[in-house]
Amino acid sequence: MERTNMTMLTDFYELTMANGYFEHGMGDQIAYFDMFFRKIPDGGGFAIVAGLEQVITYLKGLSFSEDDLNYLRSKGIFSEEFLDFLRDFKFTCDVWAIPEGTPVFPGEPLITVRGPVIQAQFVETMILLIMNHQSLIATKANRIVRSAQGRGVMEFGSRRAHGATAAIIGARAAYIGGCVGTACTLTDQEYGIPAMGTMAHSWVQMFDSELEAFEKYAELYPTNCVLLVDTYNVLKCGVPNAIKVFKEKKPQNMGIRIDSGDITYLTKRARAMLDEAGFKDCKIIVSNSFDEYLIRDVISQGAKIDSFGVGERLITSKTEPVFGGVYKLAALESNGKIIPKIKISENVGKITNPGFKKVYRLYDKGTNQAFADVITLNHERIPSGSDYEIFNPEATWKRKKICNFYAKDLRVQVFNEGELVYKSPTVYEIREYCMDQINTLWDEIKRFENPHIYYVDLSKELWELKTKLIRDLQG
Amino acid sequence: MERTNMTMLTDFYELTMANGYFEHGMGDQIAYFDMFFRKIPDGGGFAIVAGLEQVITYLKGLSFSEDDLNYLRSKGIFSEEFLDFLRDFKFTCDVWAIPEGTPVFPGEPLITVRGPVIQAQFVETMILLIMNHQSLIATKANRIVRSAQGRGVMEFGSRRAHGATAAIIGARAAYIGGCVGTACTLTDQEYGIPAMGTMAHSWVQMFDSELEAFEKYAELYPTNCVLLVDTYNVLKCGVPNAIKVFKEKKPQNMGIRIDSGDITYLTKRARAMLDEAGFKDCKIIVSNSFDEYLIRDVISQGAKIDSFGVGERLITSKTEPVFGGVYKLAALESNGKIIPKIKISENVGKITNPGFKKVYRLYDKGTNQAFADVITLNHERIPSGSDYEIFNPEATWKRKKICNFYAKDLRVQVFNEGELVYKSPTVYEIREYCMDQINTLWDEIKRFENPHIYYVDLSKELWELKTKLIRDLQG
Repeated sequence: MERTNMTMLTDFYELTMANGYFEHGMGDQIAYFDMFFRKIPDGGGFAIVAGLEQVITYLKGLSFSEDDLNYLRSKGIFSEEFLDFLRDFKFTCDVWAIPEGTPVFPGEPLITVRGPVIQAQFVETMILLIMNHQSLIATKANRIVRSAQGRGVMEFGSRRAHGATAAIIGARAAYIGGCVGTACTLTDQEYGIPAMGTMAHSWVQMFDSELEAFEKYAELYPTNCVLLVDTYNVLKCGVPNAIKVFKEKKPQNMGIRIDSGDITYLTKRARAMLDEAGFKDCKIIVSNSFDEYLIRDVISQGAKIDSFGVGERLITSKTEPVFGGVYKLAALESNGKIIPKIKISENVGKITNPGFKKVYRLYDKGTNQAFADVITLNHERIPSGSDYEIFNPEATWKRKKICNFYAKDLRVQVFNEGELVYKSPTVYEIREYCMDQINTLWDEIKRFENPHIYYVDLSKELWELKTKLIRDLQG
Repeated sequence: MERTNMTMLTDFYELTMANGYFEHGMGDQIAYFDMFFRKIPDGGGFAIVAGLEQVITYLKGLSFSEDDLNYLRSKGIFSEEFLDFLRDFKFTCDVWAIPEGTPVFPGEPLITVRGPVIQAQFVETMILLIMNHQSLIATKANRIVRSAQGRGVMEFGSRRAHGATAAIIGARAAYIGGCVGTACTLTDQEYGIPAMGTMAHSWVQMFDSELEAFEKYAELYPTNCVLLVDTYNVLKCGVPNAIKVFKEKKPQNMGIRIDSGDITYLTKRARAMLDEAGFKDCKIIVSNSFDEYLIRDVISQGAKIDSFGVGERLITSKTEPVFGGVYKLAALESNGKIIPKIKISENVGKITNPGFKKVYRLYDKGTNQAFADVITLNHERIPSGSDYEIFNPEATWKRKKICNFYAKDLRVQVFNEGELVYKSPTVYEIREYCMDQINTLWDEIKRFENPHIYYVDLSKELWELKTKLIRDLQG
């Protein structure tokens, strides 16, 4: 496939609906759509939002080629007038978003699109695809990175990624989540995420002996000499041969990598052998089906590990490969007035929050710790410092008066009537911002299992609006 | 990212190794690499191989641009001679493969690459990435399709796919596995996989009433009128409104879609209401977190369903999102002689099969049922019809003399010294071939859990070679 423009990557129903709005003269009706998610993957305490930069690229590039129009014409259900409309299609919506790298919680509008309904509806598939994918991987990577307790985690998963984009962009998201680098060369070239890698088992097998394979490698890469020691036998020959080569070739930066076997046992023994030989600064890198659970286990058993290469379980988020973001109609405009819309469900947690909204994060003025988010209607302001009552929207008797806090509006405007008004930070800035923001969260929220549930409350006004709309629909 | 050439989508170690072979004058050493997998996802009885067409496109397009070389130069570890070599890089290998859509089993070389080691090694990452992804999705789709017992299954997962390629190409793989279509418009446009779709809940919300929303849709799409009936209440208003509109507008093809709630209960009630109103030919389509397990359950409970839309659990292969294909050195050539190579592991099942190999499938001459595969060395022929003894390579006392069979060489040559000598079948042909081949498998192998394990044996000669190499390495 020789295209990079993803305008046609859309669920077909976006087109049947677009055509419907067009034919019924409803195309210019202004609508608000929210992208949000309902459940944090892996039962975690927070998610990391990512993908906005790629959403921006997509929205900027929205356009239909003659090939696209010919294909659509061939479906036999679209009028020439509609195809003419698509030929001149230009994205003119407003977009607000929570910046990449922010810890986020269920129900919060991560992206809001306001504009003519044809446009605002049409972009659903790609916004969800991009945001779901990158938020999934950034969230998983962050869990894995936190489990490593300061040891470096490298993303090694290209070969098990779900297609090329999953490898390239997944490595970007993993970096945002805290990884120190990737094996994916193209992600380095395109996004500046440091690519690393040394040798496969086949390198060792290509030579008459493991020792010769190590020697040849060390001659060539004297400043970064990481030797893969498990092709034949880690302790019997792999580590002894590595030590011989380190003594003989004296490389600047030494490391061994172990990719199989019992990592706790092998790294302890290898560490002792390396130390005894005088190579206390030789790093031990491991890479064998790790995720946050196994990393926590081997560290708690005293495994001697300097860094981890994490492949399939990160790049596919194996324990939970779906980030369930959805894109829902929140409001319409009529004569300049916002008409909030709601989607009812038998499951209370699935009922959407109506209206055009904002998300505030409340921080303790003394400690800078975040203690609650409040979703409000767009015109509401939370006055920093003054007394403010928050309450649980699903159990309104759970109330708390708070003071000595400051409130931060989490969202930024990204597009203004189709014009990009936001400059994406660099991926390095996003990664650092992510770490900083996680530092504002309580440790109780960072547990891998059964974390404390962070407060995400609705303002009184939003709660009352929601309650009224539910009652109206039932009546 | 404005590139479609994926040459640089490679683990960085492929480049450090390539440089190593180049600098040590080993670049022209002829090597054989096998791509194979060790475990069938979801504990199933067979996998479906897919991805070859995209591998071919990748291999044909292999080339380094000046931008690529400049990037590599900036890493400071590659010589100008090596970069010159990459500038003239041309793929000149031989490639053999098992065609897409074939049911395959652990240990079988799905792809073999023979050629100068720099090239044959370099293509590892992308071959694995493409084959692992598509084989994963084709295998999962086939499980889901079989669970639906003849009802149509549509792929609806773009919004939860891991990036754009996962959506576009995942839908292709799902079609090979037996899906009848996809929601992904671009997959239709590029690969001819039928795209389908009608409306989202937001369509219904955009009108003053559900009835109006249905009427407007039916006016526009009189030949394919599928109405989404669960925006407010399926049985109280959704189905009654759909019936009103069917009576009033008399569309040619009618359907309702239910996307939430208890599918067994709702479809039974909806079916009764539709039948009573005289719409026995109105289809019922459901789409709410289905996979093979849930589909089997609702069907066994008598749910009235004509077709399924399957999203996240198919496009991510949620219950097992990793297809663990690997790419291992199998042999070298020295003065025209093949020197088999083996990779030892503590786990017997992980020891590789050495040498340049073939895969034969043995079919019963009477019934055309496949009953065993035999991996042989390349020069071996299995004479059809004559007595032949197969045995379990991990339990060699399990032996069986077979007769009245014919043997089929499963692999085709795809590249001959870098020249493409294979014409990919159309995706329709692949899908049909896949169904035909599955029909040759015993039902016992098709169970979702605890299937009978299909025989994949080694020829006596290959088994003896492997045993000898293991002994040599241990000696």
